[in-house]
Amino acid sequence: MAVPPSTYPQRLLPLFLGLFQGALLLFFALLVTYDEPSAQAEDTNLVANQVYSIFPFFQDIQVMLVVGLGLLLTFLPRYGFSALTHNFLLLNFSMQWALVLQGLLHHFHHGQIHLDLHKLLISEFAAVTVLISVGAILGRASPCQLLVMATCEIPIYLATEWVIVTCLGVLDVGGTITIHIFSCYFGLGVSKALFRAAQQPLHPKETPTPSSDLMSLVGTLILWVFWPSFVAVLCQPGDAQHRAILNTLLAMSASAITTVVVSSLLERDGKLSLGHLQNGSLAGGVAIGVVADMPMPPVAAPALGSLSAMVCVLGFRFLTPLLKRKLTLHDQCGIHNLHGLPGILGAAASVMAVLVTSKDTS
Amino acid sequence: MAVPPSTYPQRLLPLFLGLFQGALLLFFALLVTYDEPSAQAEDTNLVANQVYSIFPFFQDIQVMLVVGLGLLLTFLPRYGFSALTHNFLLLNFSMQWALVLQGLLHHFHHGQIHLDLHKLLISEFAAVTVLISVGAILGRASPCQLLVMATCEIPIYLATEWVIVTCLGVLDVGGTITIHIFSCYFGLGVSKALFRAAQQPLHPKETPTPSSDLMSLVGTLILWVFWPSFVAVLCQPGDAQHRAILNTLLAMSASAITTVVVSSLLERDGKLSLGHLQNGSLAGGVAIGVVADMPMPPVAAPALGSLSAMVCVLGFRFLTPLLKRKLTLHDQCGIHNLHGLPGILGAAASVMAVLVTSKDTS
Amino acid sequence: MAVPPSTYPQRLLPLFLGLFQGALLLFFALLVTYDEPSAQAEDTNLVANQVYSIFPFFQDIQVMLVVGLGLLLTFLPRYGFSALTHNFLLLNFSMQWALVLQGLLHHFHHGQIHLDLHKLLISEFAAVTVLISVGAILGRASPCQLLVMATCEIPIYLATEWVIVTCLGVLDVGGTITIHIFSCYFGLGVSKALFRAAQQPLHPKETPTPSSDLMSLVGTLILWVFWPSFVAVLCQPGDAQHRAILNTLLAMSASAITTVVVSSLLERDGKLSLGHLQNGSLAGGVAIGVVADMPMPPVAAPALGSLSAMVCVLGFRFLTPLLKRKLTLHDQCGIHNLHGLPGILGAAASVMAVLVTSKDTS
Repeated sequence: MAVPPSTYPQRLLPLFLGLFQGALLLFFALLVTYDEPSAQAEDTNLVANQVYSIFPFFQDIQVMLVVGLGLLLTFLPRYGFSALTHNFLLLNFSMQWALVLQGLLHHFHHGQIHLDLHKLLISEFAAVTVLISVGAILGRASPCQLLVMATCEIPIYLATEWVIVTCLGVLDVGGTITIHIFSCYFGLGVSKALFRAAQQPLHPKETPTPSSDLMSLVGTLILWVFWPSFVAVLCQPGDAQHRAILNTLLAMSASAITTVVVSSLLERDGKLSLGHLQNGSLAGGVAIGVVADMPMPPVAAPALGSLSAMVCVLGFRFLTPLLKRKLTLHDQCGIHNLHGLPGILGAAASVMAVLVTSKDTS
Repeated sequence: MAVPPSTYPQRLLPLFLGLFQGALLLFFALLVTYDEPSAQAEDTNLVANQVYSIFPFFQDIQVMLVVGLGLLLTFLPRYGFSALTHNFLLLNFSMQWALVLQGLLHHFHHGQIHLDLHKLLISEFAAVTVLISVGAILGRASPCQLLVMATCEIPIYLATEWVIVTCLGVLDVGGTITIHIFSCYFGLGVSKALFRAAQQPLHPKETPTPSSDLMSLVGTLILWVFWPSFVAVLCQPGDAQHRAILNTLLAMSASAITTVVVSSLLERDGKLSLGHLQNGSLAGGVAIGVVADMPMPPVAAPALGSLSAMVCVLGFRFLTPLLKRKLTLHDQCGIHNLHGLPGILGAAASVMAVLVTSKDTS
Repeated sequence: MAVPPSTYPQRLLPLFLGLFQGALLLFFALLVTYDEPSAQAEDTNLVANQVYSIFPFFQDIQVMLVVGLGLLLTFLPRYGFSALTHNFLLLNFSMQWALVLQGLLHHFHHGQIHLDLHKLLISEFAAVTVLISVGAILGRASPCQLLVMATCEIPIYLATEWVIVTCLGVLDVGGTITIHIFSCYFGLGVSKALFRAAQQPLHPKETPTPSSDLMSLVGTLILWVFWPSFVAVLCQPGDAQHRAILNTLLAMSASAITTVVVSSLLERDGKLSLGHLQNGSLAGGVAIGVVADMPMPPVAAPALGSLSAMVCVLGFRFLTPLLKRKLTLHDQCGIHNLHGLPGILGAAASVMAVLVTSKDTS
């Protein structure tokens, strides 16, 4: 069990994580409590309905992040196992870190922190930003680098989210702007900072093989299926949530078909590209997030889905090679095409929707 | 980017799909709207409870169709990736096409179409028929042929369903007759029409290997787990839905065990056949659909499950080779054994149940 | 179809299962009925809310047992397909057998047996003990031996559970004591009894390969995601259930991170061991079960999760080799580390929690 000095860097990761876990326990011991137990039976039912009616949505989102996104990232065959593990580890670390930071912020204003499922969900959303940003540097960064990135990204996300939602008053139920656009450009920045040197040759682990494609596609499909839960979980229950579910379903279905159309037309042999299918099908879900619960005409949802799938596939075909050549910007999973471009499209759509609605009512 | 003339057929698919997606957008823009927003808070809760209480069931069914059925179809190893993609594409296309057709039918009677989750669910059920029928010709038809089949099958299904449910007044919550029996014989008809020529040699892609079996079995298990949601989603909430869930669980559990019994007895070396297990375990779910919510004695559910598993496995062992030899009818996935025979058994059971119940009450 | 005498043992399995299935049908026909249909609409809503509000939890648990646990057991590559099949068969057999036994017990006291989803769930919990115990002898026992084990284990479990919960009055919502500790030592006993002879050489099927690791890890992640449903399903709806969900989430998240810390520190090259990750991440869920719904300070949950992950990984590193050497006790999946040690830890924690609470109130 003697540890030779050469393994010192390998000891860095467990030491850092161990200290973090200890700090979390201390934080919990000192500052966190549960909600007061409800006094009456009727109250209990109310709690049951209000606080943990989000539990089924929460589980769906956990499946998306742990299983779906994990499998999606296994497309680099020899890196598959690590990708799944790192994704799992980063999710847990970022979620706890966001819980601590949000708790501390809250503590300075209100004292004792009351934990509930809604706070966990908000922390999970913060963790999503890290998991997206990782896509830009997948397979090229060490676990330690990933953890450092997560440690920095969570507070910056919380600040950005506070500015956008609380200060600017933007309604963004599906996190199009606060999660997708933010994490995309953060990830690209990290990629640029870490690998600003000359163009690197492709790491041998980075060449996908047919055998790994199947698992990766299954991951995409899991994300596709549960995406409506992700968008709708924070909506007002009732009409708004119902509308958010419908709009997301329609947008993603239109995305799937449009992706096949555009990808088949672009490829020389008319074959469908796996990367296009995986990203294009989800692009509609990214774009719809910010407008999903608005009372807009139903045609807007499939139209936005189609448009964002188009933009995503065109981005893969033309923009990614351009960025790589001109800016030596390496974007491993193409997060700019899946999260950046459709996110901007969704933000533009929300501006339009607000303008149209305000005209109608004025 | 110049397209040589020889690739013309490969351009057919995206052009067809592109036109379809455009038509759908036009249809949505002209005719579809959402339900009026509810005026009051109490109303909102009512909407929440009534309209989208089916959302968890809906998600379960999406998992079944996109992930479960997709994986099930990957048993042809080199065709696995295409099977997953085609299944996904066909589901989206058929669902949208059914949405348009149902909307138009409704429009001629009632004007403006109000979209809700229930209408999406009905369209999803229509799409299931296409996904089942595909099983007869899996791996032998081009994507274009599959799309043409879907285009024809959806309106025929809607007409058949209207005749059976509205005109004849048959109650079929689990779609045993309207979905399973219909799509089975439709698929066999298409198989006969497309490949009526002499017996073809087995395509090399059609030989399963052990490595692909695991994924295919996982797909089966996903279908097996979520089948109760598929049967119960359209039931009356309360006792009927509770009964439908219980009956489906019991029928499928009995199916699983009976399949092992019958398959082990039939195989010369006493080993369990994967194909038998995959289909026999699900046969109970097909048969129970039409009687699941009826107030019949509980023994009927496991009895029906056992019987249909028996019929399914015997069909694979004796009927499929016979059909192939005598009628040159090729049934790639054995849909006649999984959907045809158990469906007929379920229909017979429902007739018996109705006769017994009417005697009791008269 | 002639059966040569040499295949007689291979006929044992189907004959046994066939007789069992027949007996179950007889039992259902004679003794089982459904609940009386509710007379009024309001009643119906009550039934809907009370009896099958557990349905989403039930589905989550089915996914855990059929898909998650099944995949987890595929880590022995050439045995993967059998592991998945045996797991599925044993689950169905044990569930039905527990249903029969519980029904008979109930019948002697109250007459006619009224079936509902809650009874199915209780039977499913009984089946879990069998699936856990199998982990000790995975890949070394024939299907017949597994079935005999299940036949014996279910009645012993029911008796033990009755003693612990009804006689001793222990509250154990997550089954830490009644399920995990019991099945662990039952499985180890069976392993000792079956293979008490000299140490066997490792069966070639027992050597994991990288390719099978990915699927096995996916199974673990599915279990990890849905574990809160398993712990919370039997809790009192409202505050207690909400607390159980939160505590389980926190415990499992802390487990995941602590596992990485301890495993990396223990391994000579600082690499994370797959076996450690798979078991350590779940250890928190095992330990938290017995205290999950208690009103304890929130810090207890992550602390217990961290501790049990530590104990689990240390068990793999030091205790398992010791047991194998000193007691010639072979524990294929290390169930003693995942279910035994964290279970004991959880039981100790519950004693402490009860003592502290009673002091507070006295």
